Amino acid sequence: MSNIITLLTDFGQEDPYVGIMHGVIYGIHPEAKIADLSHSIKPQKVEQGAFLLSNSYRYLPASTVHIAVVDPGVGTKRRAIAIHIREVGNFIGPDNGIFSYILQAESSRNAAIEVYELTNPVYQLPLQSSTFHGRDIFAPAAAYLAKGTALSELGPNIPLEQLVKLNFQIPEWEVKKSGKAKRARGQIIHIDHFGNLITNFPASLFADLSQEQLDKLKVRYGTGLTITGLKKTYNQSKKTAFNINNIISLFNSSDYLEIAQINGDIATLLASKIGQKVSVEVPLNRETTLLPENPTKTEN
Amino acid sequence: MSNIITLLTDFGQEDPYVGIMHGVIYGIHPEAKIADLSHSIKPQKVEQGAFLLSNSYRYLPASTVHIAVVDPGVGTKRRAIAIHIREVGNFIGPDNGIFSYILQAESSRNAAIEVYELTNPVYQLPLQSSTFHGRDIFAPAAAYLAKGTALSELGPNIPLEQLVKLNFQIPEWEVKKSGKAKRARGQIIHIDHFGNLITNFPASLFADLSQEQLDKLKVRYGTGLTITGLKKTYNQSKKTAFNINNIISLFNSSDYLEIAQINGDIATLLASKIGQKVSVEVPLNRETTLLPENPTKTEN
Amino acid sequence: MSNIITLLTDFGQEDPYVGIMHGVIYGIHPEAKIADLSHSIKPQKVEQGAFLLSNSYRYLPASTVHIAVVDPGVGTKRRAIAIHIREVGNFIGPDNGIFSYILQAESSRNAAIEVYELTNPVYQLPLQSSTFHGRDIFAPAAAYLAKGTALSELGPNIPLEQLVKLNFQIPEWEVKKSGKAKRARGQIIHIDHFGNLITNFPASLFADLSQEQLDKLKVRYGTGLTITGLKKTYNQSKKTAFNINNIISLFNSSDYLEIAQINGDIATLLASKIGQKVSVEVPLNRETTLLPENPTKTEN
Repeated sequence: MSNIITLLTDFGQEDPYVGIMHGVIYGIHPEAKIADLSHSIKPQKVEQGAFLLSNSYRYLPASTVHIAVVDPGVGTKRRAIAIHIREVGNFIGPDNGIFSYILQAESSRNAAIEVYELTNPVYQLPLQSSTFHGRDIFAPAAAYLAKGTALSELGPNIPLEQLVKLNFQIPEWEVKKSGKAKRARGQIIHIDHFGNLITNFPASLFADLSQEQLDKLKVRYGTGLTITGLKKTYNQSKKTAFNINNIISLFNSSDYLEIAQINGDIATLLASKIGQKVSVEVPLNRETTLLPENPTKTEN
Repeated sequence: MSNIITLLTDFGQEDPYVGIMHGVIYGIHPEAKIADLSHSIKPQKVEQGAFLLSNSYRYLPASTVHIAVVDPGVGTKRRAIAIHIREVGNFIGPDNGIFSYILQAESSRNAAIEVYELTNPVYQLPLQSSTFHGRDIFAPAAAYLAKGTALSELGPNIPLEQLVKLNFQIPEWEVKKSGKAKRARGQIIHIDHFGNLITNFPASLFADLSQEQLDKLKVRYGTGLTITGLKKTYNQSKKTAFNINNIISLFNSSDYLEIAQINGDIATLLASKIGQKVSVEVPLNRETTLLPENPTKTEN
Repeated sequence: MSNIITLLTDFGQEDPYVGIMHGVIYGIHPEAKIADLSHSIKPQKVEQGAFLLSNSYRYLPASTVHIAVVDPGVGTKRRAIAIHIREVGNFIGPDNGIFSYILQAESSRNAAIEVYELTNPVYQLPLQSSTFHGRDIFAPAAAYLAKGTALSELGPNIPLEQLVKLNFQIPEWEVKKSGKAKRARGQIIHIDHFGNLITNFPASLFADLSQEQLDKLKVRYGTGLTITGLKKTYNQSKKTAFNINNIISLFNSSDYLEIAQINGDIATLLASKIGQKVSVEVPLNRETTLLPENPTKTEN
């Protein structure tokens, strides 16, 4: 298999939880290479973890084993699972929807996906707590898998359809009543270390827009903040009488729409929070306005 | 020896202190595998470091070298030491009590323990600061030890009895005046990332209780908070008129009594602090009440 | 080359940015050993990053590849560079002055220095964002370099003189008007996890002082704080009527003057900030006072 194992949890870095998982992994598989993606998912916020993992996995080799533990149901009957996506990666964690973004994206590309339930005690620590399956079940499973144990050894194959799915929404275009513009509604899904506001609008939503439409695109957030057009970098704006705070929108490094303040922290400036609404509006192309019987409502 | 080295310090992660220790280790022992247990021990809080290390070391192979640096006496005459506990692990750090919890636990199991003072300059950096022995003494000693240098090369053997001991107390049962119940007094020893309150009551203190006693067990904390009974997971409670905040107690993943709020942060809710008192009370078994001349006062 | 790669960024640890860089490195160079020096540089504070990197690199083998990413100009025309300093190390990052402290120190030792611009797309990720060159350009370049790719493969050699330089000032002595003392003016350049105030006065500035001068040295900071003399460790002071807060100055583990509170956090006590002024004053030696036509104004 591989030696690379990634970790994404809501454990923080103050406690020994993460280091113990590293130790368990090295104890089983001394050749492992561990990359910590994030341990700062907000406690129990499965969707935030799901989103950030979906931004990360494509930058790791397909042989990587990704562990994700945001697990409010630890110790209950929720399943522990391993997912293999061919030519993409291996994913280990609770069956609570934390892999939903990835499964949605990869299913839409018709990737070959297999799911196994982690039930074989041979690949778990002998004494199990009911509060720390990261240590007792997920870390050992990942270490054995990376070391070469077959997925089918970890437990029975289960149908993909049985997995818990997050009920997340990808924004879609709607034609406005006027018939002259279309709008999509989304939200802030993550606020990064720099205070940048990452929304759930994927770049693919904008793929069919003309340059004229992109130039006239309006991003609306909060009470009164409207940003016109998209920038390519954090340095393509200058302070003007109309934009004294140097606020821009752009596609971020994971291809989602982001609202940023140049060399500043807009989240602190505006006391932003995950879940706040953001909308995007563009004028409709002439052809489209002439064809109201065929309204633009699509995800591509 | 081994390649796994763990680190536990009060250095935080903002400064390059930890990364420099990693670099010094890799420079001496390129095959090392480093697991960071925690760098968020409260500055100079040796006991907190000692407690968290004692919760972690059993999950690492016995060949592991554990470095612990919470070291208010750095640069003074306090000794630098290496401890080898057979079939358990190797421990490197200042002689200030930071290994007290582990030594107490392992001594009580009659483990074979050897102690060495780190005096041999061959296994230290050539230029030494008087403020950063993690870099200059402990990291090199651990790297050489993990790489195969004999403990006796690092410096002279010294008697275990000479080590500085923390004066910590493990809670003990006392029969209440009424003769109908027994009580133990302890404290909050750590607050984790989720705001869970970890106390210094080990699960072993409760090992002899009957199920009836466990069901009637009362955990008291602060002004007026009383929790009855123990849960097994974070999901075995529901909000009631009598427990509107969903506060429970349970044994945590390290087998200490923990007070938690389900999907919440009780430490923030109650402005909890390390060192605050917690007490536990259980009704006495009938037999025990009949034998007041043999009061329950034991650690097991 | 080597397997050790260090990272220093302003990315924080909440987001997957750092973990993705680890993953990209391991994907290219599975034998890499990564040491995270710091990810807590204040956002866009190139000088703080430059200073902390200059405190760290000497503790790593000369074969190490150091990546530094504090990069407010990402996506603009600023160059991406690799620097090789013979017998010292390799440095990869944006050409914005982040290596200025190191280049100043190593140039003054006449080290052999070569610079290359990172232009060869073969050693970059195929799809590049304009906001995350740490992932797309710097991590791949470092991984290939560590794996054995020649520097000259990464792009064209460019003259050292063309690099962007930080305009930082190393404090210098000035004779006071009285002719009886000399003074140097500097500032706080970093505040560490313990709240220690690290200034930009290098120990070398004090190398020629007599013991009498050192004993009478006065460190002045803020309104009214004057510390007399230097300590060697955090334990060489005791609380007195004149120093109720136990504040001392000493040379820290990187040989810069530091102001510290013993077992305390002076930065919180005094609400200190990076950039605040600090001055140092010593009485002049008799000989020097007799020779006012030759004032002490030197860096050594």
